[in-house]
Amino acid sequence: MANIRDVARKAGVSITSVSNLLNNRSHQMSGETRLRIEQAMGELGYHPLRNMPAQDKTQSPIIGLLVPSIVNPSFSALAHEIDLAARAYRYRVLLGNSYRQEDEERAFIDDMFSQGVRGIIVAASDIRKTYFVRAAERGMMIVSYDNRFPDGIAAEARIVDSVSMDNIAAGRLAAEHLISRGCRRIIFATEATLTLSRSHKIEGFLAAMRHGNIALPYRVIEGQANRECGDAEMFELGQALVSQILAIDPRPDGIVAINDALGIGMMVGLRAAGVAIPGEISLVGIDNISLSGLASPALTSVMPPLAQMARLMVERVIRRMAQPGLPPGEYLFAPQLISRQSVRIAGH
Amino acid sequence: MANIRDVARKAGVSITSVSNLLNNRSHQMSGETRLRIEQAMGELGYHPLRNMPAQDKTQSPIIGLLVPSIVNPSFSALAHEIDLAARAYRYRVLLGNSYRQEDEERAFIDDMFSQGVRGIIVAASDIRKTYFVRAAERGMMIVSYDNRFPDGIAAEARIVDSVSMDNIAAGRLAAEHLISRGCRRIIFATEATLTLSRSHKIEGFLAAMRHGNIALPYRVIEGQANRECGDAEMFELGQALVSQILAIDPRPDGIVAINDALGIGMMVGLRAAGVAIPGEISLVGIDNISLSGLASPALTSVMPPLAQMARLMVERVIRRMAQPGLPPGEYLFAPQLISRQSVRIAGH
Repeated sequence: MANIRDVARKAGVSITSVSNLLNNRSHQMSGETRLRIEQAMGELGYHPLRNMPAQDKTQSPIIGLLVPSIVNPSFSALAHEIDLAARAYRYRVLLGNSYRQEDEERAFIDDMFSQGVRGIIVAASDIRKTYFVRAAERGMMIVSYDNRFPDGIAAEARIVDSVSMDNIAAGRLAAEHLISRGCRRIIFATEATLTLSRSHKIEGFLAAMRHGNIALPYRVIEGQANRECGDAEMFELGQALVSQILAIDPRPDGIVAINDALGIGMMVGLRAAGVAIPGEISLVGIDNISLSGLASPALTSVMPPLAQMARLMVERVIRRMAQPGLPPGEYLFAPQLISRQSVRIAGH
Repeated sequence: MANIRDVARKAGVSITSVSNLLNNRSHQMSGETRLRIEQAMGELGYHPLRNMPAQDKTQSPIIGLLVPSIVNPSFSALAHEIDLAARAYRYRVLLGNSYRQEDEERAFIDDMFSQGVRGIIVAASDIRKTYFVRAAERGMMIVSYDNRFPDGIAAEARIVDSVSMDNIAAGRLAAEHLISRGCRRIIFATEATLTLSRSHKIEGFLAAMRHGNIALPYRVIEGQANRECGDAEMFELGQALVSQILAIDPRPDGIVAINDALGIGMMVGLRAAGVAIPGEISLVGIDNISLSGLASPALTSVMPPLAQMARLMVERVIRRMAQPGLPPGEYLFAPQLISRQSVRIAGH
């Protein structure tokens, strides 16, 4: 089994640094060093908790997981990875669906407290909402998935861990890929409800457009999901957006979809309208759901390292439950472009 | 709000019958009557538990849910419907993935006992396994999803509730649809691991073949998933089966896939091999996952009434936790064929 020495070697840091992190003396450590150590622990299967004082018997070996909707393939994949990571620590996952409703988020937190659950991972509408902040103040260890505090908030004011894909990089990667393949009239398609992670994707997209000297008409188009729980409807929304896209003159030759489900819906709608993909319009999604490799043509997409992220989230929750004084951290994971068949070959 | 009178009227039974069921005097009631009453309660939103003595405070308001893998879209849809039904009773769902491994099933049961959870819904590899039987004997209220006790077991020996789609009817419906559209060389494609529900689907398929006087070569082909947790691999397996299918001489003109994921995988593989669907081969799936309507061509499929089934499962677990003496029941739900574009039009 891996020991602290192996972790230090793999992370390229001193044993003292690893020890500092494990013993809550990491306030002077850079976020990047901390992340390297955490990742080395994850990859080596090093579980410092096994050496910790036995868990308080009244504390439940349950981690709560709150997602917008488990039917959304991005979140069923997340739940799967979190369950795998939690099982390695003999924790179980208590599942909640919020449907992006505040009432459901509030009820979930109340239920976790009354269950004795003291650690939750949340893919929330907005982690800055009062009830999340209050819950953290009352001792709930919260890890926020894909939902950061805005830049400019002091480290001391951060009361939850935040684990995200670098969404700015994701939007930029998708857009740069289209530009490098020769697309020049590029749009970004999204659902209208703007979470911080969605804003970041758009920000990355716009930065790539500016940097690539892409003139107008690049633009962001958006559609409104029918119900509050927009995620399960992404496919349908993608199909519905197609008429808007085809009404743009001159017609776009590249689209970044805010998620793969929306992208696959657009693909179905574009094909029904007789538009060739990638011949006439190239398409890139974000999320890399398993379905995307099976779409026709297979959808090029930007992939978050979900298993690594899940492992870190579970470790953060468990470590902070054992050491409540541990300051929360912010962790950004670099995304990767998975190139498939939905983007034209440059020069064709 | 609906009362006991409304339930009796809707179910077409006497108020006494409803009262007998609610008060554990249903031993002489036919399964069919019981089912009618339960369904009427579900449809009317009648919750007899509200009139019951308050729940034991030491009992956890948690229901366990054990599925093979939450990444399989059939089971993420199930988890979603069960969560919705459980929330109506203010219960939460504790999720387990078994990956069809006995160790994981056993660990799940142990954890539920130590959590104080006394009711679980399980989509198990085989509900007759000793650890499920022992758990039921120790007071765990178990509802088995899509996994019946074999016919011929006496009612008294049934110790878990069983809620299933009528899988024999499902296999038959799929096959009859192909026959009615003129297919004559029909095969049934499945993963090799035979659960009871899979055997039933094949049984229904074969019955339809005999009844339709379809001569050989109807046959069952099967592929073996690489890992034990076959469900997440169904797509890939479907693609892999295509070479077997195309090697059959004369070539089949109709395929029933044991589930939609396998069917969509076959569709991708057949298309890659230049086979027209439904022009040359018609295809019917079973499960009706949300993706099937978006495949190209959209996949015809046999649909279980999942929301109704989830509601009944949650109600059975909660009612039996409140009244442990209540005998378990067996509930079969009729499936429905959803006709889309993957089956040829008769006469063409």
